[in-house]
Amino acid sequence: MTVAVVGLGLIGGSLAKALVRAGHRVIGVDLPRVARRALRQRAVAATAPTPEAAAAQADVLVLAAPPRTNLALLGRVARVARPGLVVTDVGSVKQPIMARARRLGVARFVGGHPMAGSERAGLDAASVELFRGRPWFLVPGPAAPPPAVRRIRALVRAAGARPVELDAASHDRLVAYLSHVPQLAAWALLEAARGEPLVRRHLDLAGPGFRDMTRLARSPRGIWREILGQNRPQVARALSAFRKALGR
Amino acid sequence: MTVAVVGLGLIGGSLAKALVRAGHRVIGVDLPRVARRALRQRAVAATAPTPEAAAAQADVLVLAAPPRTNLALLGRVARVARPGLVVTDVGSVKQPIMARARRLGVARFVGGHPMAGSERAGLDAASVELFRGRPWFLVPGPAAPPPAVRRIRALVRAAGARPVELDAASHDRLVAYLSHVPQLAAWALLEAARGEPLVRRHLDLAGPGFRDMTRLARSPRGIWREILGQNRPQVARALSAFRKALGR
Repeated sequence: MTVAVVGLGLIGGSLAKALVRAGHRVIGVDLPRVARRALRQRAVAATAPTPEAAAAQADVLVLAAPPRTNLALLGRVARVARPGLVVTDVGSVKQPIMARARRLGVARFVGGHPMAGSERAGLDAASVELFRGRPWFLVPGPAAPPPAVRRIRALVRAAGARPVELDAASHDRLVAYLSHVPQLAAWALLEAARGEPLVRRHLDLAGPGFRDMTRLARSPRGIWREILGQNRPQVARALSAFRKALGR
Repeated sequence: MTVAVVGLGLIGGSLAKALVRAGHRVIGVDLPRVARRALRQRAVAATAPTPEAAAAQADVLVLAAPPRTNLALLGRVARVARPGLVVTDVGSVKQPIMARARRLGVARFVGGHPMAGSERAGLDAASVELFRGRPWFLVPGPAAPPPAVRRIRALVRAAGARPVELDAASHDRLVAYLSHVPQLAAWALLEAARGEPLVRRHLDLAGPGFRDMTRLARSPRGIWREILGQNRPQVARALSAFRKALGR
């Protein structure tokens, strides 16, 4: 397959590297300096200046930019997509982008979300092994043709991951509990500790438990603000369940 | 030194193994089947049937039972301690045992607390490397003679750890933020996730972030109930700071 990956950060970069290793042709799209670095690292076989240019050459286009940017990119790609192109994304929230694909009439869109990541960001943190054995959620819209879904399943397997189909609402509820509230808890643990001067002075004495529980607090805030904003109702519900459990 | 270690679980067992490796003579006290296993594993050089019997032969006695048991053992040891014996403990809360030592008139008591551990428990989880490079809090009472404090510092260094002196109130505040509230958060994250049927069914799909943040939830509940009970005011304060940060 020829796969266009738009956004060569931690996730897009790791996917590009894994697909290249699996023998696929990957066209990367990102800022020129990132795209050049990806080319030098052989994370991609070629680069394209725009998502539209990449879409014209690809069997699959993967939106791997931050969540709000992916929504905008989907609109741009929808206007130029050849009938043969299948579009997917790697965003952590699925209802907004599925709704956008429906409104835009992009039937050949299959939402995706790898359950893998790191508190690190960017192409230099990307790893060919990031998805090895990890679940990768697939959310086919109601109108998605089975061959389009099969193509994305094949892509996910080529990246070393395990496709798991789920509807968008269930997905968003699930990740609120398994990912979004843990992220908030990591920030809040660190913020509470830093807010107490005695603790702030002795943060370096924390044990492995505290370090594990605040590792996620180093994740990029900007992307997380978008994720949490897109999944607000489910995050509110899961956060309330967490706060009740804490109270007990 | 001859060191009596009372309680050969994760912490006491690891300490015994580390001290034996450092060339010290360790006398272990635990239930007969645990003591025999420690002897077979050469985690201890000898066993004694009671803390009193071990105290009679030792330069240092380490209380490494659960927190409430340590309080009771301190009373027993106080009645038989030779003038040369220095007593320490490894408990996660320092104010109750420091107050008990003061009331009992055990001047040669130096509170201790290694910032190391694991969600696993028992002698079989004990590791000679558990304390390697970790901070180990020392809380000398106001009446502790300097040679007694020096002896415990030497013991901590022999275990591979780094002694850090702190007063009991500061210690208990610090660990409320760095250890006790993170423990509560781990339980609450898991409880909230399990409380939602959809999430409960898909818990195996959680990523490394969730696994790291709920690893501590496997820690032994009984010991933790004692720890949290002993540090109730500081835990309440830190928990309230955490809940406020979560709300933000």
